[in-house]
Amino acid sequence: MKKLLYILTTLFTISISAQIDKMEPPFWFEGMNKSEIQILFYGKNIAQNSVSVSNNVVITNVTKTENPNYLFVTIDTKNVVAQTLKFQFKNGKKSFSKDFEIQKRKENSANRKSFDASDVMYLLMPDRFANGDESNDSSSKLQEKGNRSLPGGRHGGDIQGIIDHLDYIQELGATAIWSTPLCEDNDKGYSYHTYGQSDVYQIDARYGTNEDYKRLAAEMHKRDMKLIKDYVTNHWGAEHWMFKDIPTYDWFHQFPGYAQSNYRMTTQFDSNASKRDAKYCMDGWFVPSMPDLNQSNPLVLNYLIQNAIWWIEYADLDGLRVDTYSYNDKDGIAKWTKAITDEYPYFNIVGEVWMHDQAQMSYWQKDSPIAKIQSYNSYLPSVMDFTLHDAFGNVFNENNAGWNDGVIKFYDNFTNDFLYANPNNLLIFLENHDTGRFNQIYQNDIKKYQLGITLLATTRGIPQLYYGSEIGMAGDKGKGDADIRQDFPGGWKGDANNAFTNSGRTEIQKQFFDFTKKLLNWRKNKEVIHSGKLTHYIPENNVYVYFRHNDTESVMVVLNNSLDNQKIKLNRFQENLKGFTSGNDILTGKTIDLKEELSVEGKSSLILELK
Amino acid sequence: MKKLLYILTTLFTISISAQIDKMEPPFWFEGMNKSEIQILFYGKNIAQNSVSVSNNVVITNVTKTENPNYLFVTIDTKNVVAQTLKFQFKNGKKSFSKDFEIQKRKENSANRKSFDASDVMYLLMPDRFANGDESNDSSSKLQEKGNRSLPGGRHGGDIQGIIDHLDYIQELGATAIWSTPLCEDNDKGYSYHTYGQSDVYQIDARYGTNEDYKRLAAEMHKRDMKLIKDYVTNHWGAEHWMFKDIPTYDWFHQFPGYAQSNYRMTTQFDSNASKRDAKYCMDGWFVPSMPDLNQSNPLVLNYLIQNAIWWIEYADLDGLRVDTYSYNDKDGIAKWTKAITDEYPYFNIVGEVWMHDQAQMSYWQKDSPIAKIQSYNSYLPSVMDFTLHDAFGNVFNENNAGWNDGVIKFYDNFTNDFLYANPNNLLIFLENHDTGRFNQIYQNDIKKYQLGITLLATTRGIPQLYYGSEIGMAGDKGKGDADIRQDFPGGWKGDANNAFTNSGRTEIQKQFFDFTKKLLNWRKNKEVIHSGKLTHYIPENNVYVYFRHNDTESVMVVLNNSLDNQKIKLNRFQENLKGFTSGNDILTGKTIDLKEELSVEGKSSLILELK
Repeated sequence: MKKLLYILTTLFTISISAQIDKMEPPFWFEGMNKSEIQILFYGKNIAQNSVSVSNNVVITNVTKTENPNYLFVTIDTKNVVAQTLKFQFKNGKKSFSKDFEIQKRKENSANRKSFDASDVMYLLMPDRFANGDESNDSSSKLQEKGNRSLPGGRHGGDIQGIIDHLDYIQELGATAIWSTPLCEDNDKGYSYHTYGQSDVYQIDARYGTNEDYKRLAAEMHKRDMKLIKDYVTNHWGAEHWMFKDIPTYDWFHQFPGYAQSNYRMTTQFDSNASKRDAKYCMDGWFVPSMPDLNQSNPLVLNYLIQNAIWWIEYADLDGLRVDTYSYNDKDGIAKWTKAITDEYPYFNIVGEVWMHDQAQMSYWQKDSPIAKIQSYNSYLPSVMDFTLHDAFGNVFNENNAGWNDGVIKFYDNFTNDFLYANPNNLLIFLENHDTGRFNQIYQNDIKKYQLGITLLATTRGIPQLYYGSEIGMAGDKGKGDADIRQDFPGGWKGDANNAFTNSGRTEIQKQFFDFTKKLLNWRKNKEVIHSGKLTHYIPENNVYVYFRHNDTESVMVVLNNSLDNQKIKLNRFQENLKGFTSGNDILTGKTIDLKEELSVEGKSSLILELK
Repeated sequence: MKKLLYILTTLFTISISAQIDKMEPPFWFEGMNKSEIQILFYGKNIAQNSVSVSNNVVITNVTKTENPNYLFVTIDTKNVVAQTLKFQFKNGKKSFSKDFEIQKRKENSANRKSFDASDVMYLLMPDRFANGDESNDSSSKLQEKGNRSLPGGRHGGDIQGIIDHLDYIQELGATAIWSTPLCEDNDKGYSYHTYGQSDVYQIDARYGTNEDYKRLAAEMHKRDMKLIKDYVTNHWGAEHWMFKDIPTYDWFHQFPGYAQSNYRMTTQFDSNASKRDAKYCMDGWFVPSMPDLNQSNPLVLNYLIQNAIWWIEYADLDGLRVDTYSYNDKDGIAKWTKAITDEYPYFNIVGEVWMHDQAQMSYWQKDSPIAKIQSYNSYLPSVMDFTLHDAFGNVFNENNAGWNDGVIKFYDNFTNDFLYANPNNLLIFLENHDTGRFNQIYQNDIKKYQLGITLLATTRGIPQLYYGSEIGMAGDKGKGDADIRQDFPGGWKGDANNAFTNSGRTEIQKQFFDFTKKLLNWRKNKEVIHSGKLTHYIPENNVYVYFRHNDTESVMVVLNNSLDNQKIKLNRFQENLKGFTSGNDILTGKTIDLKEELSVEGKSSLILELK
């Protein structure tokens, strides 16, 4: 009996030791700036093993946690060329091995260029953009199945759908795509937004494969376009495999009972804030279904850094967008961001910092003079210009300009640019996947859209378009998120309206599309718009006039937000008009004399290349 | 005939040379830090004279301008003790002299203390506060005569009226008085506000004499109270004697035609602003009746510096309030402010910077981290907390708290304190002479007043009260300035209602007064309120809880702005409640246990000294 027990125990031990369920990252790259790589091995009682590695590679650290199913092994890859390494695990007399590949990098990978103000970023939600492969609408491995009839269900859009319409996006004049997350989100329902990820090394099977994602990037690069990944450092989904077998107690923020974030991001710098409020903002959970990651734990931080770098190398990414940036551990997220930009010095990362005060937003941008007050540096190159978004709120319905009404709201927003370390690296937008849709607010009024998109395409910053705006798509945030995330018409076989093609567009869709296309394609090569100085003038009569200018070019923009035709006296603008006598209206191609007055119709804009 | 002409010309020359109409400053003081003093001599063709001075005093500079009626003579008073100097003017054979006195200073004058957060400042308009001397209601030398029946007329209030009611102000618990300007304003009408001054070395005869002003300060110092002068650097009145015979073309800002300020103060730091807009904001006139002074002209700047210092020494002032601070020449006003604080290192000066964004207001405070971005330093120790004033706007009518409604507005205001170099040196107020009256907005609701004044008296900063608030005076800005600047009841002989005395007050006036008196007198010696740290908590259910604390004391303040009684769970505040078991309610004197919950009635506040 004793013997039998011994045999059984031994067999059991062998079987569990031999099993490695996960190895992350699955492989790594040669010649990285930071040569140490910490590999997570996951398997039943794996921590009971000793570990060694082949080819004289040095293991610099082995970390075990209170959970014996995890083993974190750090090797130094300095001078280790591309090859397959073999990890040897040993527990008493039992042993097994696991291969780990070091791959070659793309040439000059570290110095990859990224997105900037010369780009126009097209934001899309993959589930709602286009269904290029109906065979993957559901997956046997994933809980939620495709069901287009549910507003909050999975509609079937995928990576192939994006690839199929790259030409459309390129024709429109956008040069970069920010897709909301594509990694696996195995939530039971409402998984289409994919911010509650269950595996961050794996593309969700309903979007395609890791290879498909890589192919998307390659197809975009062929077209001189850039792919930006939506990265979520703050939380994972409750279906994440690590949440089901937590590596260390503090891998996620845990409280006695559930603790929700108070969402008051000001607590992160408020010198009067209580420590408790600051902690609950940062460490409380965003929603109950999204366990909050603890970036102050070095294991977690390192895992997130390596995962992001892995995707950049693997998929050949051109930038990152970071979700809920200011909800992360403040110091942890700065280390994360610095680690990535240390690896890729020219890489751009834009963080979601949804605040309503420029000083507060500036705080989160790299080298911020505001954060400097508290000796903080996020190292985040770009933040989203949410105060400009606030200004877009109702401005085009304000026909009469009081002290604070109408286009003064734009002017006022830009008066605080001096608070930013780099205002030209702000992401500017009319709307995104979390806000009411512009064309809903303005009831598809093409004139108002033209005013909005004109500002977006000509002021400082990186314009971001939300899919469908360019064909007049509307959506009411008040009705719920699904309404602002409707399917792009034509993205599904059998869609009655196919707005991807000129012939398929309705008349009103054509008006929206053609204007946007003209403007964005003009913008593509306008260096003066990408990097020229902005000089603006105090609005009068609800007319906002500004110039973008450098040593060789100058563009005058006039936004008349009043209902009436306005005759604008030009002497006020001599500072910028000096040396120019006329302007080429880029929308009509007409030449306009710039003498004493300039006439601009009500609710319309002019973009003049000065001559 | 020729001979007669010669005699006449000679006589004429003698008579005009001999005439000095003005000498400013009229005298000076020994032992000043800046020992050079530039004396302005004004008289017909005075510039034709050479000038010398007695007693081996050195003339370091003589400046003539394009107007021969001005002569600016600078002497160095280093080591010159108190005495009468004699200036000798000579033009050919003709000469005359003028005495100039150097007076002794008050002992330790340079190190005079000033107002700070241990004070409560009482703002009054002298014409509207109390008429202590009916004989000066009109003056034969001044255009506008007393007429109490005109809302915008001169009502007869004066310095004697203030002196007569110092005991009242002291009883109330205020420790400092900011009176709107008292120097001569000889405008034809609407001169009662006195911001359009015609002689800045002379108290307006309808308020009294320079000696009366000095007496006011002395009477206040007897009561341990402080006198703050309202100084206007930005402009004078069109009746100013210098505007009638301008010393130099650029003494005032002049334009082809009239140029009004655009009032967009953001142009002063906006890196996108056009130079023209910035110039028109700063140099344009505030109103057509107020010529805009050019502080970038060193003669003007020096004149304004000396005038302010003269008043501080002469009247023994305890502080300055500076009107329209941010409309001045930006560099000029910084030099002005620095010159005064160089002379009086502990002197406090509060500037009117009426903006709606903390970063923008912070810009104007001394050593601002925001202004540092542009290497600017205003040297102004204190600015007015206009964003807190904005928060007071409608907050007490917001009974239900949304994300942005109710007391969160206070909380939000204070979250940006880190942007200020010194948040405790901000002037905080419910209202002033340019805003709608608090008791008008809140319809004399005593509960709302109590909430407001509680916050004012217990948060960081220097509380400022506007005369009459403490007895519930209302006034509608929409009806014009006169309505918010009504006569204090009891300030005029025969007033039916005399709110200066307990017996004269109506029941409702008593409620307002008694509450204010109790609170402010309690505040007088509460060091923890004057200088303790502020820690606040995110409001819940429209209840704002904060603490003022230092090493020895701690005060808990609860503002319940909801309509309902609230039971507040205390575990959230352990950070500040640790070590305390009860609190002394300073309004009722009752001791309140601090265990699990605290009960606070709807629309009421608690101030607890923790024990």
